[in-house]
Amino acid sequence: MPSFDAASSLPLHPVAREAFLAALDDGWADPGRLHREGRRARLLLDAARETAAEAVGCRPDELTFTPSGTHALHTGILGALAGRARVSRRLLVSAVEHSAVLHAADAHREAGGDAAEIGVDRTGRVAPGAVGEAIDAGGGAALVCVQSANHEVGTRQPVAEIADECAARGVPLLVDAAQSLGWEAVPGAWTLLAGSAHKWGGPGGVGLLVVRKGARFKPRAPLDEREGGRSPGFENVPAVVAAAASLRAVRAGAAAEAARLAALVDLVRAEVPRRVPDVEVVGDAVRRLPHIVTFSCLYVDGEALLHALGRAGFSVSSGSSCVSGTLTPSHVLRAMGVLSEGNVRVSLPPGTPREEVERFLAVLPDAVAGVRAQLTDVPDTAARAVRDAAGVTVDALGKLCPLPVIELARVIGDVPVGGTVTVLADDPAARLDIPAWCGMRGQTFLGGEPAPDGGVAYRVRRES
Amino acid sequence: MPSFDAASSLPLHPVAREAFLAALDDGWADPGRLHREGRRARLLLDAARETAAEAVGCRPDELTFTPSGTHALHTGILGALAGRARVSRRLLVSAVEHSAVLHAADAHREAGGDAAEIGVDRTGRVAPGAVGEAIDAGGGAALVCVQSANHEVGTRQPVAEIADECAARGVPLLVDAAQSLGWEAVPGAWTLLAGSAHKWGGPGGVGLLVVRKGARFKPRAPLDEREGGRSPGFENVPAVVAAAASLRAVRAGAAAEAARLAALVDLVRAEVPRRVPDVEVVGDAVRRLPHIVTFSCLYVDGEALLHALGRAGFSVSSGSSCVSGTLTPSHVLRAMGVLSEGNVRVSLPPGTPREEVERFLAVLPDAVAGVRAQLTDVPDTAARAVRDAAGVTVDALGKLCPLPVIELARVIGDVPVGGTVTVLADDPAARLDIPAWCGMRGQTFLGGEPAPDGGVAYRVRRES
Repeated sequence: MPSFDAASSLPLHPVAREAFLAALDDGWADPGRLHREGRRARLLLDAARETAAEAVGCRPDELTFTPSGTHALHTGILGALAGRARVSRRLLVSAVEHSAVLHAADAHREAGGDAAEIGVDRTGRVAPGAVGEAIDAGGGAALVCVQSANHEVGTRQPVAEIADECAARGVPLLVDAAQSLGWEAVPGAWTLLAGSAHKWGGPGGVGLLVVRKGARFKPRAPLDEREGGRSPGFENVPAVVAAAASLRAVRAGAAAEAARLAALVDLVRAEVPRRVPDVEVVGDAVRRLPHIVTFSCLYVDGEALLHALGRAGFSVSSGSSCVSGTLTPSHVLRAMGVLSEGNVRVSLPPGTPREEVERFLAVLPDAVAGVRAQLTDVPDTAARAVRDAAGVTVDALGKLCPLPVIELARVIGDVPVGGTVTVLADDPAARLDIPAWCGMRGQTFLGGEPAPDGGVAYRVRRES
Repeated sequence: MPSFDAASSLPLHPVAREAFLAALDDGWADPGRLHREGRRARLLLDAARETAAEAVGCRPDELTFTPSGTHALHTGILGALAGRARVSRRLLVSAVEHSAVLHAADAHREAGGDAAEIGVDRTGRVAPGAVGEAIDAGGGAALVCVQSANHEVGTRQPVAEIADECAARGVPLLVDAAQSLGWEAVPGAWTLLAGSAHKWGGPGGVGLLVVRKGARFKPRAPLDEREGGRSPGFENVPAVVAAAASLRAVRAGAAAEAARLAALVDLVRAEVPRRVPDVEVVGDAVRRLPHIVTFSCLYVDGEALLHALGRAGFSVSSGSSCVSGTLTPSHVLRAMGVLSEGNVRVSLPPGTPREEVERFLAVLPDAVAGVRAQLTDVPDTAARAVRDAAGVTVDALGKLCPLPVIELARVIGDVPVGGTVTVLADDPAARLDIPAWCGMRGQTFLGGEPAPDGGVAYRVRRES
């Protein structure tokens, strides 16, 4: 029963478990104390910092352990902004950053700062030139945040080139390396970096924040004397020791395992569209993390598909609106402009056997077909459609994803080539999924405008 | 080799260790996910919250797990202040709170708020009436913070009575229960409560914050959807499970163990002044935690005494200035107005055998005598003293605690009864220790005023 949700969290690595248990005996005390137990804890903490710094590629005194990757991002972003507040209050983040970055941007706005997003292409990639343009367009920036690789679709960002664009303009770059740090160090002249141990097989409760020497940085109060005044609260030495040990351990075999998993992901990328009709595989096919692949399935309720795959023994995640609990599709898929319905993220944990992936590919077609079949008992679309000189109008108000797209697909054949279908819908996902469907089907999306009775009237011209 | 520094941190309780290891297998996943592993983690997290809530005496939905006790205090204080910002921006904290509370008060001041301290008596106790008076004197308050018991001297606060004083004025009370939560629930009608798992044998990385239903509360952004929007970052489920399990486990035997340790502390309180000359045992003798006892030794360098006790196999802590690294004595001892030099805090871990305490009492006299002997090779005080009509003046400028007091003690015999000794000193600890010495010795402290060459001129009248 494999969990194919490695990008969310990994079980504790055996090396981390061993290190944790050993450090429980020697590292439970307060490393700030002068007594024997305190000094032992301090030694372990110092050694863990050196190990982690070596893996990250920084000086030990540039690295702060935080209670989570989220804390590392919040502290890093707000600290860098505060450090440069006299120069600029403008924060730039890519549109596909982790929600922790977007939440920090919201907090910055609430505090009177300015925050803007840098768009991505259909693969989720940030163009280095776009970063430079965004800085210049606003007359500079206090900080730019770009992830090393995306957590939902796996696309790698050109971090080194982006760092150069930032450096040329004297703007620090914070890299959220949560998804990639277990695989490799982040290249280039970045200024700040954040990571999260449970993403690389370390324990929960450990993040890391790197601030390069010389960077302006002023962490938010309240603080204390711990972690160089950058992260308050009792140091969790056993967890930190385990985090550092597992980072070193996974890195030792990372290159070989990355090559192996990348081939399995290539298999998924090739086979899913071959075995399942009406599927879009999203994200960059080449410049990507080794272990993540994401696809979206037309006419599929994402939550139902997750449950179907779960019954078949596979734990995956989804950026579909009906799964997120927020009723809006993942902001990553939105920023990419790709289909969000029936979205599935497969993220393979290290060691995943090829047979498991083949079994997933074997069960997927039936799982998708079963979920699609459930959606056929909706009231007859054609009978409800209104026909007039302008074409056909379908009322999908109050219906949730994927029903608006299903209704569109059902009536498009009722209009002649060149004719227009209008879909009335108020599910926010329709704004993304109707254009995405048009792109996949070769039809033309004419746009959406507010409908008289609420919601949006999306117009589609039949081309084939 | 016992650690008598239980108030700082405890080793992981065996029950916590077992729970942690079990939860590693079932609780490593993201409890926010819908898949099998996510649901398992969610079940464990929910069960841990119920266990912890039962021990605290609150509803599960009032309890938030945080990354540390410090985070619980910071979030609780700043969230309660933000929730009541329209009513008042005035924070009142007792003068003997943990530094995490004082740091939050500093942050509140930096943000334009008002924060004031409520004084304590010589035992470290906050009078309930003083809380009511402090609220009234400022025309109300946004929040009052009082600890359940002091971390340095063990004195319990009359929390229930203080809660009544607050409630009568419509002001919420936050109780820092870090030191007492392993022993018992906090009584009374408090509004918010904070705790720290590693103080009760739970793992590092887990604090808890309770906010009573109906209390106004607005936690600081950035936040996410985790922990009810009150504590961001990936939930550390195995650690939380271990924390809750150990809280339940230590509570089961708490009453019996408290009685046993209280008797051992009574032994220390009685025997230390009997066996060691010139010692002041501080803190309330009766209304106190079962396991903490603190005393200060005249003419002793605190750091040297800690090392001497460490060589004898005992790990203790100290609030002396020369040990803290900040060159100022503990703010708790200062607020109490008691001697800070040669300060030793003994905090007994659960299970401490009586023999260990007796051995400590056996080695202490020689340890103190040895450290005192080291301080006799300072330049001859009497030869440097300046005698005039007003009495004797000793220049201890540039000399650190305990030297100013040692010099005072050496020359006091040189003036007649009724005569005056003036000590010039610039060590901040002298401000506390010279009056404390006078109190212990039956001499009269006449006050201190700025000296012409810097530092302070402290004047003492010989009475006996």
